[in-house]
Amino acid sequence: MEVTRRNYKDSLNTVYSAIEEADFLAIDGEFSGISDGPNVSALTNGLDTPEERYTKLKKHSMDFLLFQFGLCTFKYDQTKSKYIIKPFNFYVFPKPFNRTSPDIKFICQSSSIDFLASQGFDFNKVFCNGIPYLNQEEEAQLREQTEERRNQHANGVGTPSYISPSSKGPAHVPEEHKDFINRVIEKVEALFTNSEKTLDLEPCTGFQRKLIYQTLNWKGFTWKPLKQKSKVDDEERKRREQQKLEREQEELNDAVGFSRVIHAISKSGKLVVGHNMLLDVMHTIHQFYCPLPEMGVGLFFFFFFLMFQEMITNTSLAELEKQLKEGPFKSPQVETAEGFHSYDTAQEQLHEAGYDAYITGLCFVSMANYLGSFLTPPKAYISARSKLVEPFFNKLFLMRIIDIPYLNITGPDLQPKRDHVLYVTFPKEWKTSDLYQLFSAFGNIQVSWIDDTSAFVSLSQTDQVQIAMNTSRYAESYRIQTYAEYIQGKQQDKEKLGQTAKTWGDDGWVKSHYTSSTTSGSFGYPRYNCTNMHCAFNIL
Amino acid sequence: MEVTRRNYKDSLNTVYSAIEEADFLAIDGEFSGISDGPNVSALTNGLDTPEERYTKLKKHSMDFLLFQFGLCTFKYDQTKSKYIIKPFNFYVFPKPFNRTSPDIKFICQSSSIDFLASQGFDFNKVFCNGIPYLNQEEEAQLREQTEERRNQHANGVGTPSYISPSSKGPAHVPEEHKDFINRVIEKVEALFTNSEKTLDLEPCTGFQRKLIYQTLNWKGFTWKPLKQKSKVDDEERKRREQQKLEREQEELNDAVGFSRVIHAISKSGKLVVGHNMLLDVMHTIHQFYCPLPEMGVGLFFFFFFLMFQEMITNTSLAELEKQLKEGPFKSPQVETAEGFHSYDTAQEQLHEAGYDAYITGLCFVSMANYLGSFLTPPKAYISARSKLVEPFFNKLFLMRIIDIPYLNITGPDLQPKRDHVLYVTFPKEWKTSDLYQLFSAFGNIQVSWIDDTSAFVSLSQTDQVQIAMNTSRYAESYRIQTYAEYIQGKQQDKEKLGQTAKTWGDDGWVKSHYTSSTTSGSFGYPRYNCTNMHCAFNIL
Repeated sequence: MEVTRRNYKDSLNTVYSAIEEADFLAIDGEFSGISDGPNVSALTNGLDTPEERYTKLKKHSMDFLLFQFGLCTFKYDQTKSKYIIKPFNFYVFPKPFNRTSPDIKFICQSSSIDFLASQGFDFNKVFCNGIPYLNQEEEAQLREQTEERRNQHANGVGTPSYISPSSKGPAHVPEEHKDFINRVIEKVEALFTNSEKTLDLEPCTGFQRKLIYQTLNWKGFTWKPLKQKSKVDDEERKRREQQKLEREQEELNDAVGFSRVIHAISKSGKLVVGHNMLLDVMHTIHQFYCPLPEMGVGLFFFFFFLMFQEMITNTSLAELEKQLKEGPFKSPQVETAEGFHSYDTAQEQLHEAGYDAYITGLCFVSMANYLGSFLTPPKAYISARSKLVEPFFNKLFLMRIIDIPYLNITGPDLQPKRDHVLYVTFPKEWKTSDLYQLFSAFGNIQVSWIDDTSAFVSLSQTDQVQIAMNTSRYAESYRIQTYAEYIQGKQQDKEKLGQTAKTWGDDGWVKSHYTSSTTSGSFGYPRYNCTNMHCAFNIL
Repeated sequence: MEVTRRNYKDSLNTVYSAIEEADFLAIDGEFSGISDGPNVSALTNGLDTPEERYTKLKKHSMDFLLFQFGLCTFKYDQTKSKYIIKPFNFYVFPKPFNRTSPDIKFICQSSSIDFLASQGFDFNKVFCNGIPYLNQEEEAQLREQTEERRNQHANGVGTPSYISPSSKGPAHVPEEHKDFINRVIEKVEALFTNSEKTLDLEPCTGFQRKLIYQTLNWKGFTWKPLKQKSKVDDEERKRREQQKLEREQEELNDAVGFSRVIHAISKSGKLVVGHNMLLDVMHTIHQFYCPLPEMGVGLFFFFFFLMFQEMITNTSLAELEKQLKEGPFKSPQVETAEGFHSYDTAQEQLHEAGYDAYITGLCFVSMANYLGSFLTPPKAYISARSKLVEPFFNKLFLMRIIDIPYLNITGPDLQPKRDHVLYVTFPKEWKTSDLYQLFSAFGNIQVSWIDDTSAFVSLSQTDQVQIAMNTSRYAESYRIQTYAEYIQGKQQDKEKLGQTAKTWGDDGWVKSHYTSSTTSGSFGYPRYNCTNMHCAFNIL
């Protein structure tokens, strides 16, 4: 189901109930770009630590816009022995709510836009009909403003700020507005001298309104007296106020817009699965919740990670879907719920977020069911709530990192040995071939670029490191450090900057800035209170 | 005529000849946003100096994208006594030329995007079919790269950089590629043992190509021997090289893309008119030429400024067009050239750049002809080349500045007296009403906000300034300076920063960093050599 600003309100209950009844949810996002600084190979260096990767993405990816959000809900039907799915494809755009609301600026990256364009992405739908949204802070501000305005109105202190308190004389009314202003003033005066109960004003421009206020002000009418003199009876007034309150509430909800879907996912506590979903998770939090926390403070997404690394050689979603149709995996049986658009995996619609979410869910089902084949007796269907999939929760796949497969949200990250890795700095003219040349004596090496003048070089054997260090001692154009020295240097730089290192709790877990109450929820997942969007999943 | 990537090459000659035959050109641009920092009222403060305004726009507006460029050419037909017009509406997008070309990032501002969306702007056309472009530096780089590659090829030093010079053993060929690689190697070997003249290779992936290179390398083939052993005869080789050269040239021209239209406008030396065109001019230079210069170094656009300020109360293009249809102005007679889309001013298509350029041109004709009514005897038609319009050249309208109507590109800017203006700083909680309150003793005042904690306050009489200064002496929450003190302070800050002030030449004109040769061209306009895009025009 395609959801835009036009049908958003009518679709909301359908979305809510799909989430509520689901066994698990699959999500996917499309963005206006990836990196506003380093190129992709520097952004995703093969020897990043999880903290480095997260920090780089936080710094260089968050000013792009998540403008399409795919959600596919999966509900297992016991009698049919298949999943019933409901795919949603949301178009999202931060249309300013009113004149005082934040005017969001976002970056577009030509290559990403060009890629989406080549896939038939509909930008007009995003920009013309995208659903608006607010993060928690913006929502709170808006609610506060509305509250304030209501109180001011109730207390009769509604003098518009643009009336000069020094306006001692009559307002200067330009010739062309004189008739109109005089008509209005007569009507207002009639309100107090005749038996008129209400005052119907013709529509007017801001400038005319200003002239009315100024003229009335000069004639001794102020908002307080106006209110006191009002003849509208109490009951009618209350009814109107109630109506106004409801209208305001509705407008507020409209402004919160798509964030309400994210809140619903979060509140549901359902398992959320995604494909290479670190960026999706970060954008979702940043755009619809709150500024991203520092690394290691509890990313408050629960998360699932499957490690069929040796069986799956290509992690692109299209390839993954193909591989999971073949043995030892089995294509899962699914049926699209009535009234929903039925995707055809033979006709690929990749890079539409709704379709990608759907495929991601299919992959999850294949993988989960595969786990069941190891049971005695084997089971063909493994629920998303099964203990079998639990070990994979809360681990976000780190794309292109050689030796740390995932970022662990609820525990310490893996600390692989990098004894065979050298940190090399050199003139910016150097190319990969120069590094191969430099290390030609050491056989096979692996180069991971950091920036124009530095790279990690992985040697095939650890005992070569000392030789390389020795031979480089008198080199002038380049400089070599061991990985340990490099990390130590970085740590020292950080301490100089007054930043503190990660602190570990007694239980060996990263201490969260959020209050965490562990082992709540039906499956004993730790919860974080910023949002409890519950579980996430990441393939490879 | 709508011009996108699809019909760009076929339309280019039509565009060139329209420019060449025109009496004057009208332009207009649509952007992805206006300000990435201050809000519009701070960006266009009513008491900006021309330098401040320019510097602010340079800092806060140039990261947006000019994505639609309107050009309307006007050619006067003596026999018909009317202008023949050719309107063009170009969609522009920085599609990356290849993998190594710059991956442009640009900002979008939600309010601007939302506004364009409400006007029916087609974003898909921009992003899917926008014409690419390069600025002069990017073009030079690309030409250099191509030249280098050609020379390398000619000298036979084309060893791909990803071949490790240390590959002493045979390349490791994965099982699935072995058949393919063996087939290729056999063919290459056949080239030297049999009578084969050419070598047709099947299409292959980059990885397969690497395997081929590595295997051939190990077998003792290198690119130099390969070349020497080539049996393709000289004539055939020359013909192919010529073809390749032409193909490369064409690809280069395709990459320069829309910038070629701007070059043509520039080279033509025609009068270019625009409406509130400071931003259009700045974006055009920045996007299609070169980084914007510091203020006062010759903006190298010639420019036209009409000062019917007292007769025209609203400068929005729609209003302007209406007013210029009424007396004392006259609607100009125009005819759309055959084969071009005929705009209907009754059915407004405002904010399509081509239409806006068309309307701008109409306004210019009305205004120029109006100047003719003052001649004795009066003249109904005034050419764009008339001496009558010359005084308005090279002056860019400064929107919302109270007392400096234009930025003068080729001479010193106007220096209005601002003796009645105060510079006031205060706590950030203050609102306009607080300022009115503060100055309530002084009658009518005008407030121009600078930022959250400062504003200019214009008093109605200069002799009130001293009184205001005296009464503020002991104030704690706010601080008042005269305008002269404020400017002096800014100047000192600037000098501290090591920036030098504008320098004036002997003739009282701003010294240009560009070589300027005055009084060249047919109408004695000074020219600047960066580009001589010739004349511009700005209404009000």
